[in-house]
Formats: sequence, C-alpha cells, structure tokens
Amino acid sequence: MTDRAATSSTQAVRDAVSRGAGRFVDELVEWLRIPSISGDPDNAEDVRLSAQWLAQNLQDTGFPTVEVWETPGLPAVFAQWPSDDPDAPTVVVYGHHDVQPVTPLESWEHPPFEPTVVSTPHGDRLHARGAADDKGQVLFHTLGVRAHLEATGRTSPAVHLKLIVEGEEESGSPHFAALLQERRDRLACDVVVVSDTGMWSRDTPTTCTGMRGLTDGQLNLRGPRGDIHSGSFGGAVRNPLTELSRVLAALHREDGSVAIDGFYDGVLPLTDTERALFGKLPYDEAIWLANAKSSTAYGEAGFSTLERVWARPTAEVNGLWGGYLGAGHKTIVPAEAHAKVSFRLVAGQDPLDIQAKVRDWLARVVPQGIDWDVEFYGPGVRPCLTPLDHPALEAVTRALSAAFGTEVLYTREGGSGPEADLQDVLEAPVVFLGVSLPDDGWHAPNEKVEIPLLLKGAEAAAHLWSDLARSLHP
Amino acid sequence: MTDRAATSSTQAVRDAVSRGAGRFVDELVEWLRIPSISGDPDNAEDVRLSAQWLAQNLQDTGFPTVEVWETPGLPAVFAQWPSDDPDAPTVVVYGHHDVQPVTPLESWEHPPFEPTVVSTPHGDRLHARGAADDKGQVLFHTLGVRAHLEATGRTSPAVHLKLIVEGEEESGSPHFAALLQERRDRLACDVVVVSDTGMWSRDTPTTCTGMRGLTDGQLNLRGPRGDIHSGSFGGAVRNPLTELSRVLAALHREDGSVAIDGFYDGVLPLTDTERALFGKLPYDEAIWLANAKSSTAYGEAGFSTLERVWARPTAEVNGLWGGYLGAGHKTIVPAEAHAKVSFRLVAGQDPLDIQAKVRDWLARVVPQGIDWDVEFYGPGVRPCLTPLDHPALEAVTRALSAAFGTEVLYTREGGSGPEADLQDVLEAPVVFLGVSLPDDGWHAPNEKVEIPLLLKGAEAAAHLWSDLARSLHP
Repeated sequence: MTDRAATSSTQAVRDAVSRGAGRFVDELVEWLRIPSISGDPDNAEDVRLSAQWLAQNLQDTGFPTVEVWETPGLPAVFAQWPSDDPDAPTVVVYGHHDVQPVTPLESWEHPPFEPTVVSTPHGDRLHARGAADDKGQVLFHTLGVRAHLEATGRTSPAVHLKLIVEGEEESGSPHFAALLQERRDRLACDVVVVSDTGMWSRDTPTTCTGMRGLTDGQLNLRGPRGDIHSGSFGGAVRNPLTELSRVLAALHREDGSVAIDGFYDGVLPLTDTERALFGKLPYDEAIWLANAKSSTAYGEAGFSTLERVWARPTAEVNGLWGGYLGAGHKTIVPAEAHAKVSFRLVAGQDPLDIQAKVRDWLARVVPQGIDWDVEFYGPGVRPCLTPLDHPALEAVTRALSAAFGTEVLYTREGGSGPEADLQDVLEAPVVFLGVSLPDDGWHAPNEKVEIPLLLKGAEAAAHLWSDLARSLHP
Repeated sequence: MTDRAATSSTQAVRDAVSRGAGRFVDELVEWLRIPSISGDPDNAEDVRLSAQWLAQNLQDTGFPTVEVWETPGLPAVFAQWPSDDPDAPTVVVYGHHDVQPVTPLESWEHPPFEPTVVSTPHGDRLHARGAADDKGQVLFHTLGVRAHLEATGRTSPAVHLKLIVEGEEESGSPHFAALLQERRDRLACDVVVVSDTGMWSRDTPTTCTGMRGLTDGQLNLRGPRGDIHSGSFGGAVRNPLTELSRVLAALHREDGSVAIDGFYDGVLPLTDTERALFGKLPYDEAIWLANAKSSTAYGEAGFSTLERVWARPTAEVNGLWGGYLGAGHKTIVPAEAHAKVSFRLVAGQDPLDIQAKVRDWLARVVPQGIDWDVEFYGPGVRPCLTPLDHPALEAVTRALSAAFGTEVLYTREGGSGPEADLQDVLEAPVVFLGVSLPDDGWHAPNEKVEIPLLLKGAEAAAHLWSDLARSLHP
C-alpha cells in the first residue's frame, strides 16, 4: 500500500469509527448498567445477563456465529465471523465481561452501575465499574469490525475473526484453562489479540509484548518436635526461625540477583533494541515510587526499575510466620517456621523447572537438624513474550500508529495472567491491543475510561484486521 | 574442725534429720493439699491460705519473727531467726510457696492436690503439685534449722537466718523486685541461698553457680506504606520480609557466634577449672537431645552443649510474622515485618548495654528504604554468677558434700530468674541449695519429689549455717 493509500484508509477508518461512536457509547452504557461482579455469588445472575447482552450485541453487529459457553462457574461468550477469503489468517480476540466488586461504595463519586459521562479538556470520560476493565475494551471491537467493513467496503472481515470473552477473569479464571482445552478446536487461530491491558499514557501509545510467569508455594521448616524453652536450650539447637531467615536471606545475592542454582538458565536477555525502546518511555521514577507506596527503588544490579519489573525474574517472600506472635514475650525456640514465597518468571523459564530447582537448592542450603518441605500451588503460570520482530506484533504496532498518528512504544506486564493459557493451549502468539490509562482506576473506586481512547482502540482494530490479512499470510 | 569432728558432726546432723523426717513429711503433705496456684485468680485465696500455713509452720519451727508481706498481688512470707552471736553473717533463704497450674488434669496418675507417697527402690517418693517446685525445698529448711540446733546444741542458728518465700514466682514474680526494694533493709544480708533449683542426678550432687540474664523485645521493619502487588512492583523495591530475614540471618556468624558489634565485650570467659568440672558431669547428649525434642545439637563453635546453654550468651528469634499468613496465596510485597528476639546474657554483660548495642547494630545493618524500630520489654534481667572460689559457694559445696558423702560438681542455669533481683537489690552473692531431680516434672503433670533427697537438703542446710558462720566471718 502506498503512503497516500494508507492515509486515505486511515481517514476512512476514522470517519467510520466517528459515525459509529454514538451508537457504541449508548450500547456500552447499557452494558455497564449490568453489575456483572463474578466474585460475588449474589451477582451470578447479573454475570449471566451480561453474557446474554453481549451475545445479542455481537449478533446485532453481524457475527454469524454467537454462542454462550457454560462452564462449571459463570459463562463465557464466543463469537465467530469467517472471512470470505478462506486462506485468511485466524485471529482470536480475548477479553472478559465480568467486573470487580465495588466496595467501598461510599468512595465512588458516581454510582458504579449508573454510567456517567463527564466532559474534560481531553474529551468525554465515562465513569462506571467495568468501563475500562474490561467492557469498554471488549465492546470497541464491535465498533472496530463495523468500521473495518465500512472503510474497506468488505462484507466480511479480512481475517477469520473469533472472540472469546470470559466471565470469571476477576475471580482468577478458575475454569478458563479447562474451557480453552475443551474448545481448542473451535478456538484454533494464528494469533491471539488480548484487549485487557492499557497503554503508557494518553500521549504515548504502547503495546505490551509480554507478561511474567509465576510459581509460588509454601515453605515449611521444622526443628524441635515442640516449642522448647530458650533459656534451657537456646544456643545449643538450631532455631527454625533463624534457619528460615537464613534460607530467605540466601535467596538473593549481594547484587540483588536470585541465588538459586540455575535460576537464570535459559532466561532470554533483553536486547539492546528493547532496552533502548523501554528507555524512550517518558518514565518518572517519582511517580512509579508513589504507585509502589515506596521511598526507594531497589533491585537487581545493572537493570532499570522498568526492566526489573518487566523483564527480570524475581524471588519474593509474600508471608512469613512462626513461633510466638502474641502480645508481650514468650522466650521459646519454636518447633516450626513457615514462609510463602513466589517467583516471577520471564521468557526462557518454565514454572515446573523452577520448582525443581527450588527444591534442589533447598536440599542444599537447609542444614542438618532441620526438616523442610515445600508445597507449590499448582503448576504455575508460564511467562509469555512476543518478540519485537514478530509479524503480528509489527502489525499491532502499525495499527496503533495509524490510529494515534504517532510512534508506538513497548511495555510489558510484571504480573501474570490467563494470557499464558491462551498462548500455551492455542499454541499461538499473543499480542496486546489495549487503550486504558494507568489512572483508569482498575479494581478501585471511580473506575473510568476515556471515550476518545476507546475510539482509537476501535480504529486500531479496524486497521489490524486488514494488516494481519496482508502480513501474516503475505 | 578436725576430720573426726567433721564426721561426728555429719552423723549428728544426719541423726537429727532422721528423727525429724516423719514430722517433716506429714507437714509437707498438709501444705501440698493447698492448691496455691498463683496463675489462676480462682486460687488466690488458696495462695493466701498457703502463706498463712507457712507462717504458722515457721513460728512452730521456732522463728521468733514471722510476717506475711502483702504485695499488690499475692503475699510473700518473711521469717527471721537471729543468731545469738551478733557478729554472725546474715543469710537470706529464697523460695516460693505458689505452684504451677495442673492442666491437663487427666494426665496425672495421682490427684495433684492429694499428696501420695509411693515406695521405690530409691526410697519414698512424694507425688503432688509443688512437691519439688518449690514447697518441698522450702520446707526442708525447717527440718534443716531444727537439725542444725539439735546437732550443735545451739538455741539459735549460727547465722542470722532470714527466709523470704514469695507467692507469685510461677506467675513471673511481677511484684517481687518492688517488694525487695521496699523491704531491702529488712532483707539486708551477706549471702542469698536459693532453694528453687535441682541437681544433676541422684548420684551426682551439684550446685548451680549462675544463671543467664535476658533482654528481649520486638523488632519492626516497614517498607511500602501498604501491601503492593508483587507482579507490578516485585523485584524493584525492598521487601521487608526479605530484609527482616537478612537482619535475622546476620545475627549470627558462620561459627554460630552472635555478630552484633561488641556483643561479647566484657563476657567473663569460662576458666579451665570450670570447663574441667563441667566435663566431669556424666552428660549424655542423647538424653539432652530428647529433653530438647531435637535430633541434632548445634551452636557456637568451640563450646560443648552444656557450655553453650550455661555459659555463653545467645541471640534467639522467638517469633516472626509479616505479609500474608492465610490459606492459599496472595502475591504481595508486604508493608511490614516483625520479629520477637531475645538475648540470653552471661556474667560481664548488662541488659541495657546490650539493648544499646542491638540498636546500634540495627542502624548499621538495616538498609535504606526500610524503616525500623525495636521495643524492648523492660530493662531485662541481669545475669548472675558466683565464682567457684567464693567463700559462700565453697561453703555450699562442703555442706552438700557432707550431706551426700561424695564429690560435689557444678552446674549453671541457662534460664533467667528473680535470683538476679536478689543479687542486685540485696547486693549479695547468690548460691543455690536445691535437691530436685531433672525428672521431677516441674510445671508438668505427675510432679514428684524424692523424700531421701529432701532429707539430704535439710542435712546440707544444717551444715551450711555452721560452715558459713566460720567461713564468711572467719
């Protein structure tokens, strides 16, 4: 496509989105009125209502196949719109239609389920629970696909388009992996587009290229068979609390790196390009520290704060207990000590392999006279990462750039989510198309979304389907 | 005194004790029927009754002055029997008349307050709560002083004899230090004889030469102002649980010694003689480990287990907590971490000085970005130690040797008790005259005492008053 053709296509998409914006906002407001809180059993019917509402809306949008998929918990919505080009690539869009609880209610400026539009110098802002996380970002795909058809004159999308919108994301996606396994044939695809994240800032559109994985568990140390008197015996037997402290202190080296043997084996290093692109983000450490409720940054030597949370694996103690915890004193050498530990993982690491390495390391560092065991909470979450030069990621970058008219940069997520299941079960790369802002108030009172950014999201989606049709199967 | 005179005196004391044994046991049984549990408010009247009973018994024994001393809690008993030699040294005997609770009652073979005599190959054994700790060991002093008078033909003891028998020892002696301060003039003395400990074994009479001191408190570390998400922030801020672990791991060096700067300043080293005498004790590490409910001994390099618990200072973690302690997982970097720590101290160390050194050390080892404070539980307990060549200790050694007819060895106590208050407030050396056995079941169900050993205690006391009169003011 020539520059001129690209520009004219950009304008055509923008015009189409603009024409559909009114209907889109009206529909989003309607959907946001449904309090689809998956974490509260009292709202289970609302989550079902939300699924029905979305299914109807996707049918009205033109998806020829729309199904509500039941799970042992709350339902997901599946929709499919094949391309008239049988050789077109297949895309699965992921989002969720359930929302977080709203306590404490008194902290909300506008009632969470009475969506309220407020004008600002940056355009209209829509206040409601779920506006950004994730109903607004699911629904912009209906506007996006309509604009895609209108701007291209097509009657079906340029890609085989599928949507999977789950209903239990805010409850930890307890049945999602099983659903993916069960429906993997229906969900088969070439790329997964996740619309459940945000971007750096209003002026800095970004896409996420990966999320850290996770494995966590509980470590138990046992010394004396019961608590013993620290006067009579203290100084002559090993104290499980001291030994636990030594183990946890030994988890890291002086330079902040994790000391478990082989922990970094296979870790994909950051490329110079990635570091340079991270470095272009308008990062303000004071703002980051305020969000971290912390006064000082600290971590693995040789890495910036963003690199530490996005691209480096960690070992963290999440909880710790043992011995006497009451008021005043009880001078004992206690029988037991416990810690909850978690490991964030990056591309090249595997949670089960890390569990084995943690066990091997514990066997080496826990001294004689102390019994230990470690219980991991399940198989963990694999990290996911899409390389910068992956065609699907390049396509997302171009789509966002066309929508925003500016350079697109890259972020990652330090946390761990169901995206890894999508990647692993569907055996497809995951890319991220999200337009929420860091101050949108996810999981907090006064959640809101910027309507102009949702429209940019729709534009980007419209571009993306055309681009992926060209770039994935050139 | 010639050897022959000594032998004849030994026999005279033994005969006198033997003649008084029946009355002594009858009276002890009567006293043991009173359930003087200081820790249970329901038994407060019993503790008062016990004080009255003892006061009456001491009057009947011949003490010209007997007083019940009230405290804000439960009463102590004071008795005084001046020597007819105004230049005689003054001795204070310390014991207590309250007892431990008796739960679980179903574990007792004989009802705890229905004293039961059982014959054994080693002689009669008296089963009851308080038989060994401490009523039996208080009451043998009445038999001891009667035997002392009878065997020497005196009408008053060879020393100015005072008894202070407190009623709240099993509740932590909350009012004892204040009572000592208030009554220090009445309690003025040259030496304190504590009869509230035991000896090594039936065949190895010993006396205790010291007890460790103690200071303990709570250490608090604070990182983020609230719990933060370990995915979003983990790896880029200091984790208070990790930092607490590092601090507690740094408390000890590789060789098991305490790493706090200056911690060992002034510590009185064990002499070769003391180590040799400890070495003569028939010590069985398997038995010690069984009592310690432990499989392996461990401690400061270069010291035996007994040296470690008796003669070396320690740092112990008694409790530890922070972060998420519930079921399952919550992947946070927590805001706070807490530990209860205690330090056992030996002669040459001062609790307040150690508190200052702990603070200085914490200021050095806790890193930037972590706030900390430490709150000590009061001024602590000073260690006490009587040198082996102290005349009072030599007198106790001779008295026990005369009673048991064998060599007397030395022990110490790893714990910390009101003995330090006696030493500090009365400014007098403390020696220990106790005949309980390690298996007497202190604080446990089925407490018992060996009647033949109580009689040996009475013999030793009878000898001690004559000996101290000669050796303290020669």
